[in-house]
Amino acid sequence: MKNIAKEISKKLNPIASLQELLKNDVAATDKIIEANIINKIEIIPKLASYTLAGGGKRLRPLLTLACAKLCNYQGTSHIDLAAAVEFIHTATLLHDDVVDGSSLRRGREVANIVWSNKSSILVGDFLFAKAFQLMKTSNSTKIYETLSNASVIIASGEVMQLSTPTKLDKGLDNYFAIIKAKTAELFSASCKVGAILANCSDDRILALNNFGLNLGIAFQIIDDTLDYQSDNKQFGKAVGNDLLEKKVTLPVIIAYDKADANDKALLERCFEGDADNSLYLNDINAIFRKYQAVDDSILLAKDYLNKASDSLAIFPESKIRDLLLATLDFVVNRKL
Amino acid sequence: MKNIAKEISKKLNPIASLQELLKNDVAATDKIIEANIINKIEIIPKLASYTLAGGGKRLRPLLTLACAKLCNYQGTSHIDLAAAVEFIHTATLLHDDVVDGSSLRRGREVANIVWSNKSSILVGDFLFAKAFQLMKTSNSTKIYETLSNASVIIASGEVMQLSTPTKLDKGLDNYFAIIKAKTAELFSASCKVGAILANCSDDRILALNNFGLNLGIAFQIIDDTLDYQSDNKQFGKAVGNDLLEKKVTLPVIIAYDKADANDKALLERCFEGDADNSLYLNDINAIFRKYQAVDDSILLAKDYLNKASDSLAIFPESKIRDLLLATLDFVVNRKL
Repeated sequence: MKNIAKEISKKLNPIASLQELLKNDVAATDKIIEANIINKIEIIPKLASYTLAGGGKRLRPLLTLACAKLCNYQGTSHIDLAAAVEFIHTATLLHDDVVDGSSLRRGREVANIVWSNKSSILVGDFLFAKAFQLMKTSNSTKIYETLSNASVIIASGEVMQLSTPTKLDKGLDNYFAIIKAKTAELFSASCKVGAILANCSDDRILALNNFGLNLGIAFQIIDDTLDYQSDNKQFGKAVGNDLLEKKVTLPVIIAYDKADANDKALLERCFEGDADNSLYLNDINAIFRKYQAVDDSILLAKDYLNKASDSLAIFPESKIRDLLLATLDFVVNRKL
Repeated sequence: MKNIAKEISKKLNPIASLQELLKNDVAATDKIIEANIINKIEIIPKLASYTLAGGGKRLRPLLTLACAKLCNYQGTSHIDLAAAVEFIHTATLLHDDVVDGSSLRRGREVANIVWSNKSSILVGDFLFAKAFQLMKTSNSTKIYETLSNASVIIASGEVMQLSTPTKLDKGLDNYFAIIKAKTAELFSASCKVGAILANCSDDRILALNNFGLNLGIAFQIIDDTLDYQSDNKQFGKAVGNDLLEKKVTLPVIIAYDKADANDKALLERCFEGDADNSLYLNDINAIFRKYQAVDDSILLAKDYLNKASDSLAIFPESKIRDLLLATLDFVVNRKL
């Protein structure tokens, strides 16, 4: 019975199916990740493995492995690159948490609370540098170029988010610029490097670039809607965290756009003003429901998932392509 | 008269002579640095140029340019790599200042005071990523490898410094491990990349690696002694800054090693205990003089400078080699 349940759950969950199909590569990637945080300075493996093991799905490295397989790559460097993209991701999480001052990530205390901001900054730097060290086996300047370009864009997105004042009426362009840079760019690069390694044609490299980019945008939109539709058990972050931190994400922007004068005024007080949002949880949720802010956000995410799906048309049918397509549905339907 | 004075000062200052000899490359590097911090997100060019212009001598990029010339490199990528090493250096300064909580660097307020810790963390990340983006024109995986290895070692050194308890009696090994990682490694890589670009023989690449490494060690030792022998005007940092921050640098370790029981006890209170060191400035300076802590440190620095000098013997005599050798004397005799 247990096995049947596991099988059913795998069918419903393409991430698990991908992990199963690529289990040797996944295990090899986990080993490389572990081997590269070993260090005689104790805090490096401790803090890094705490954050790396923090309940993440390791989706980005899985995309690298899957795209390398889709492109029929025969070497072993995709393992190192999968580890590299996870290191870049983890480094940005560590610095993000220091900058945001959040206390929880995926339901656990963030590393900068368990250790210190200083440690998180420096171990983040270590992991970022390690990511570039791991690219060596690719023996490809194009790989270094792709991941350094992505890193510049990610950092720009972080600075943009920090320095752009929260404006509800000009929120949409700003929101998309930031999620493209902060989230979608690394998804895109994670996919693209698989194709580059395999010496794919330029149009296939571009196809996987676009697959990752659109998947990344949709992923972040759904992430931002989950903050308004989940309880703490389903979703790692504290519910309404974004709301309490006055983060202007897509549901807020959509609600504001459609809202009447009264509702606009409340949203302004809560997201641009100094209201204590913990007192307005019900009011804001009512506004969101009234204007279908979450539903509309999900519709928008689906547009991007369709674009991602279209990008894969250039590849012949295969099990791995099917699973990558199924991953798109999973992203929009996930509850965590 | 002014010009004569300028000429004399140049003769006395090999850094200025190197800058003069390589003035086209230096100007091109400055342009590349400027062009690569241009960004529509205003805080990036503002914070970056504030820190980049902070009175630094841009010694690391100058070493890259000089070593490329010494190896008779004929291309233009040394300009990008010179900018890259300055960006790596600046990124580590930005993160260092956040971690150390210092208020001044080279006599000016640090960027994280003028802006914020958050901005310094993220603009540091941006510059670090930009450094790797700049390596593209080298079209050499060996360049990426050299600078990513250096970056891993630098970050390890930073974490080591943060997490190693200050111990006077086991200070020497720890001190050298940290300055090798934090300072000498980037000097070494800055020199080495010049030779790699020029397709030099392995023994010449190693020679410049060692030249940079030993120069870097000596540079940091002298930096640490200056904290105990200069006034604020001569030396950018506040005098005795290291003393007030209880940093166990070479003069402290040497003094402790030679000190009698009474003096040892005072040093322990000041550097391992919770004494307010501002009350002990004169006592500690007296101990330093008594045990010739600064003089002995300088002697040790000279050993490393001799090693650096020996490494250059593999290169035929040339003006650029003479100036690199003269730079070694300048490092030990500099007052700032």
